[in-house]
Amino acid sequence: MYYAVIMAGGGGTRLWPLSRQDRPKQSLSLLGRRTMFQIAVDRLAPLFPADRILVVTSERYADSLRRQSPQLPPENFVVEPAPRGTAPAIALSALHVRQRDPQAVMACLTADHYIGNEPRFRALLAAAAELARHNYLVTLGIAPTYAATGFGYIQRGASLGSFGGFAVFRAARFKEKPGLPEAQAMLADGLHAWNSGMFVWQVDRILAEIGRQLPKLHGVLARIAADPADLEAAWAEAPSTTIDYGIMEGARDVAVILAEGLDWNDIGSWEALLDVLPADMAGNVVIGAENVGVETHGVLVHSSGGRPGRLVATIGLSDLVIVDTEDVLLVCPRERSQEVRALVDQLKQRADGNDYL
Amino acid sequence: MYYAVIMAGGGGTRLWPLSRQDRPKQSLSLLGRRTMFQIAVDRLAPLFPADRILVVTSERYADSLRRQSPQLPPENFVVEPAPRGTAPAIALSALHVRQRDPQAVMACLTADHYIGNEPRFRALLAAAAELARHNYLVTLGIAPTYAATGFGYIQRGASLGSFGGFAVFRAARFKEKPGLPEAQAMLADGLHAWNSGMFVWQVDRILAEIGRQLPKLHGVLARIAADPADLEAAWAEAPSTTIDYGIMEGARDVAVILAEGLDWNDIGSWEALLDVLPADMAGNVVIGAENVGVETHGVLVHSSGGRPGRLVATIGLSDLVIVDTEDVLLVCPRERSQEVRALVDQLKQRADGNDYL
Repeated sequence: MYYAVIMAGGGGTRLWPLSRQDRPKQSLSLLGRRTMFQIAVDRLAPLFPADRILVVTSERYADSLRRQSPQLPPENFVVEPAPRGTAPAIALSALHVRQRDPQAVMACLTADHYIGNEPRFRALLAAAAELARHNYLVTLGIAPTYAATGFGYIQRGASLGSFGGFAVFRAARFKEKPGLPEAQAMLADGLHAWNSGMFVWQVDRILAEIGRQLPKLHGVLARIAADPADLEAAWAEAPSTTIDYGIMEGARDVAVILAEGLDWNDIGSWEALLDVLPADMAGNVVIGAENVGVETHGVLVHSSGGRPGRLVATIGLSDLVIVDTEDVLLVCPRERSQEVRALVDQLKQRADGNDYL
Repeated sequence: MYYAVIMAGGGGTRLWPLSRQDRPKQSLSLLGRRTMFQIAVDRLAPLFPADRILVVTSERYADSLRRQSPQLPPENFVVEPAPRGTAPAIALSALHVRQRDPQAVMACLTADHYIGNEPRFRALLAAAAELARHNYLVTLGIAPTYAATGFGYIQRGASLGSFGGFAVFRAARFKEKPGLPEAQAMLADGLHAWNSGMFVWQVDRILAEIGRQLPKLHGVLARIAADPADLEAAWAEAPSTTIDYGIMEGARDVAVILAEGLDWNDIGSWEALLDVLPADMAGNVVIGAENVGVETHGVLVHSSGGRPGRLVATIGLSDLVIVDTEDVLLVCPRERSQEVRALVDQLKQRADGNDYL
């Protein structure tokens, strides 16, 4: 059977002040009413029945995610005692999937990405499953549109033909997040795809790779399989590493399937919301508030914090981001929205800074 | 005796969204903790005992103003049944002052102006009272610093010498708010002062002028004097007019005293707050919130609405006004802050617009 595992354990502050330590990006209603996680679950429904959708997350976020998706069986939430990177998270969920079906194929999916064309995404997952049945570890690669330094890259090797209308190649090399010159070179050569962080494989294939490349992690899984009550103690022995670095870079028979036409965006900054959401005639995107404006263009207004009827009034503004939460108001030019990191760093230095993080 | 009358009946939307129909500028805490009205009362204390400070306002605002200044005797609030302009307001308060002391001098003062140098202001009021004892109707004139089109102007005539260190002239002519070319000409000729809207005179002198120029209003006063219970009915007969147009333009023996060195500002727009309030090293003024900023200069942040600990985070902003209230957030360039009028007009067209006005 085909299982989906949504990886929903991540934190991060790129969408501060809306994202917080206790309210990570997957739990944010960035696009409107539903959270990114709810949207990630919803778009799987036509392909996976609810009992074959698993969620791997940490203790900290599990309750919130359960409340967000009451249609998923409670036992489908795989809870890590502590976050240790994507490799242990995927390994633990692979163990759960194998216990249900040793011949299963599993898709490891992100919880907080925007995907505009959902039918195409499901077609991609179906094609990737077919490829995985041919013993490949399949990576979903995104055709790069600019010289991003925030993503890992995958260099493609020999063509493996086409599956379900998607071009497939052997993966020749995984590259971690590059510097700008290297990113520009990879964009120019046409041989690289962004690593989306989404993977499809047979569960026994990935567990075998873990056994070969991360034997210590494999031992942890064996302890947990033998005695689920031993999870917490065993987990303390799990190495902290990512699936890319710990497994994919050294794995055999890795394929990259080119995920074209998804209208994919990782929403790595506030500016990205302006790229993905439908704007009004003046190019403004207004969420959670009403706007009255004079000469206002290319402005993102995102208001939250339970104040219905909030009015955001603007005069003579261009390409600005306004994020209005219960306790913090952020105003910055659209092209500098990734600099919220600097503000987060400032706050970490302050005695009361944690109240806002 | 010398009485002060604070005229606190005005409305207006120049400081929207903080100022509202039910929360006029004099009741706003623009400068920090205390309201403009409280500050206007406080600065009189060294010169006027509380029982000689009167307040003239309308029914709508009286309760709020009484709560703001509990040190003033309740009977010192002169309440107009309905606002009819400054002439009837001043006439009614003159009637009250005359009933206490027919020989009184009264200063008619504004409730919502910023005055940076308060000792100098009191010295000016003392000098103006002396001048008023010489039978002049005294106008406080402000030396213009730019070609303002938002103020009336007074053209000065022959010098009357110096009172208490302040230069005094006969007033040759009152000019209503001019167009820009005329304002530029008046600024250039050095013969004009802004009309501050503040006046000092003997109470019997102003009542005599009212009798001469506005006999109908004088009749209304006579009815009220004869029977205070007749106020409401008599008031309906009072002509709607301003003291400038109704009295000053046609009055005899009008003097203008040049109020130099007051650091006066009528705070006619949000931008004005940046001019009068002390800024931090980067030229920012932050009231009611904390600010964390990256490359932020010349920005006004005014936050209210009872959310203590509100944080305003800014990146790469210059010369911007951010006004954050309970239900409205305004963001606009500093030099366009007077355009809130356009937003107010937009809101008047909307079905729910009154909720925000």
